[in-house]
Amino acid sequence: MSEFRKDPVTNRWIIISPEFRNRMNIPEKLEEVNSGPIPENCPFCPGHEDKTPPEIIAYRKGGEKNGPGWWVRVIPNKFPALMIEPPLKRRGIGMYDMMNGVGAHEVIIETPNHYMSLGKMTEKEVEDVLWAYYDRFTDLQKDPRMEYILIFKNHKREAGSSLEHPHSQIIATPIVPKRVMEEMKWAKKYYDYKKRCMFCDILTQEKEDGRRVIFENDHFITFAPFAPRFPYEMHIMPKEHQPSFGMIKPSEMPHLASALRDALRRIYLLLNDPPYNFIIHSSLQSRKDVSESYHWHIEIVPRLIKMTGFEWGSGFHINPIYPEEAASQLREVNVT
Amino acid sequence: MSEFRKDPVTNRWIIISPEFRNRMNIPEKLEEVNSGPIPENCPFCPGHEDKTPPEIIAYRKGGEKNGPGWWVRVIPNKFPALMIEPPLKRRGIGMYDMMNGVGAHEVIIETPNHYMSLGKMTEKEVEDVLWAYYDRFTDLQKDPRMEYILIFKNHKREAGSSLEHPHSQIIATPIVPKRVMEEMKWAKKYYDYKKRCMFCDILTQEKEDGRRVIFENDHFITFAPFAPRFPYEMHIMPKEHQPSFGMIKPSEMPHLASALRDALRRIYLLLNDPPYNFIIHSSLQSRKDVSESYHWHIEIVPRLIKMTGFEWGSGFHINPIYPEEAASQLREVNVT
Repeated sequence: MSEFRKDPVTNRWIIISPEFRNRMNIPEKLEEVNSGPIPENCPFCPGHEDKTPPEIIAYRKGGEKNGPGWWVRVIPNKFPALMIEPPLKRRGIGMYDMMNGVGAHEVIIETPNHYMSLGKMTEKEVEDVLWAYYDRFTDLQKDPRMEYILIFKNHKREAGSSLEHPHSQIIATPIVPKRVMEEMKWAKKYYDYKKRCMFCDILTQEKEDGRRVIFENDHFITFAPFAPRFPYEMHIMPKEHQPSFGMIKPSEMPHLASALRDALRRIYLLLNDPPYNFIIHSSLQSRKDVSESYHWHIEIVPRLIKMTGFEWGSGFHINPIYPEEAASQLREVNVT
Repeated sequence: MSEFRKDPVTNRWIIISPEFRNRMNIPEKLEEVNSGPIPENCPFCPGHEDKTPPEIIAYRKGGEKNGPGWWVRVIPNKFPALMIEPPLKRRGIGMYDMMNGVGAHEVIIETPNHYMSLGKMTEKEVEDVLWAYYDRFTDLQKDPRMEYILIFKNHKREAGSSLEHPHSQIIATPIVPKRVMEEMKWAKKYYDYKKRCMFCDILTQEKEDGRRVIFENDHFITFAPFAPRFPYEMHIMPKEHQPSFGMIKPSEMPHLASALRDALRRIYLLLNDPPYNFIIHSSLQSRKDVSESYHWHIEIVPRLIKMTGFEWGSGFHINPIYPEEAASQLREVNVT
């Protein structure tokens, strides 16, 4: 029997409908490939550094700038959606509003190994990728034109990745994207009414209930949200109130790496290395107006169903699997 | 150079970035197949009526109910996301809200010909499909539990269609979906401020500007919206203010059929029969509160790019083609 559920964070109703289970497309078996020859035309592989724009930062022991020897490397996107240089100009055309495409668009190359992925890395390797996110986040938020910084990953072509070599992306924009603005709005309304952070309340309820919790360590908790848009969707949240990813403490980073690696490992093993996206939702540290009400988190979504006209046209999603069941399956994975 | 544009209807900023053009996946050539043998396992082909639930309505000359002889046939979805029977029950679980999956989920089989599609039909044939939409819309809106009726089509597997035989779907739900609620909200704010319908103002501006207009007849206009989320997105709108699809006049229906057939024909010829979705955005006739401010329309979206973590996670879309250019290409198609 199907059910409507409302996500309190976005105020969005979704439908859980087990009848739609046959529309999930889960890879049939796990094809484990961890190494191989360096593809000649991969611009992200070591030795091919001259095929990318000059690096912004790289973690390396010795070696030349823009040469091999790095283990994480950040570069500007060669085909950027936005450019950092021009001054921001806002204008109107009749009733319409526009501005020029100012912003930053960078790529984090997560590993020199073309055949690796976050779900197969060690916790230490994942942590170094997170440090690169942190370094770029804290640097980009210094630009006063930027109102938002989006860190996200597309794993595999079906999730929108155009290059196979493991990488994530950062986009800094002069506007707050719609989805995040809504989260902030509803969280603020909740805070104004209850004088409590909505996300902190969600964590309390999830821990008490337990059925949707997947993983927990000292500082982070991974759970399936009550009203997930997508099957096997997971959220990772800091247990203590923290509005911005930029405020994470160095001592917390290994715990975040452990939680993220754990979550990606679980879908890798349970769902045979599915395509997935994840995205960090965070306020900038400068947003004092939401510092009490907003709580940063990571949303992870395996891409197992095709979006149809129903979803994009209505904003209304049909999820074929109850989050309690998805969480139970994910919890039972023997994470190695 | 890329550009931010804001859609006044949803208050959503999108990015137009020609750098992303290589991410469009347009079929290389048009494969025209208009007829062939009846596939044995297609439940929507004539002669296979017993493979579907009993029909709700069918347009036929002679022939038995649930037998062949029809040209448009409406049936309940065999795997419905929602069910009409149980009474609506709303309840809370702690801070969360839910209700049971009450609603209707129907399928409109658009033609007996497995190899046909709306973009290849005659205007008269398209009109009959629209009459089936109308008949079901006006019938379903009598159920007082239903707050919204969604009519949509997924063309081809890449657009989420699970059966090849041409069909559309209708879902009636006890909630207004998020996307439509937002449109209604912003349109209402605009109306309260200006005492004019936002959509009527958009039509005036589009007609004056002209660069995004694709097609026009006595009662309908087809244009590329100023801030489209997707490449080659088109909207079809009644020229006169009309809040609900249920209020269309019989004399207007051939004009709507002509506009819809024209739009689908243009993408069929220009983009080689691409996967697409369309959806009718309409208020129910009973919604007196938005009768001055809302204006029903059809949104058509060819599915040429993959959604990535960036889009679903941020609600922020990158469109590789300026709507002025898309409209110009679409306008130049020699519609046959």
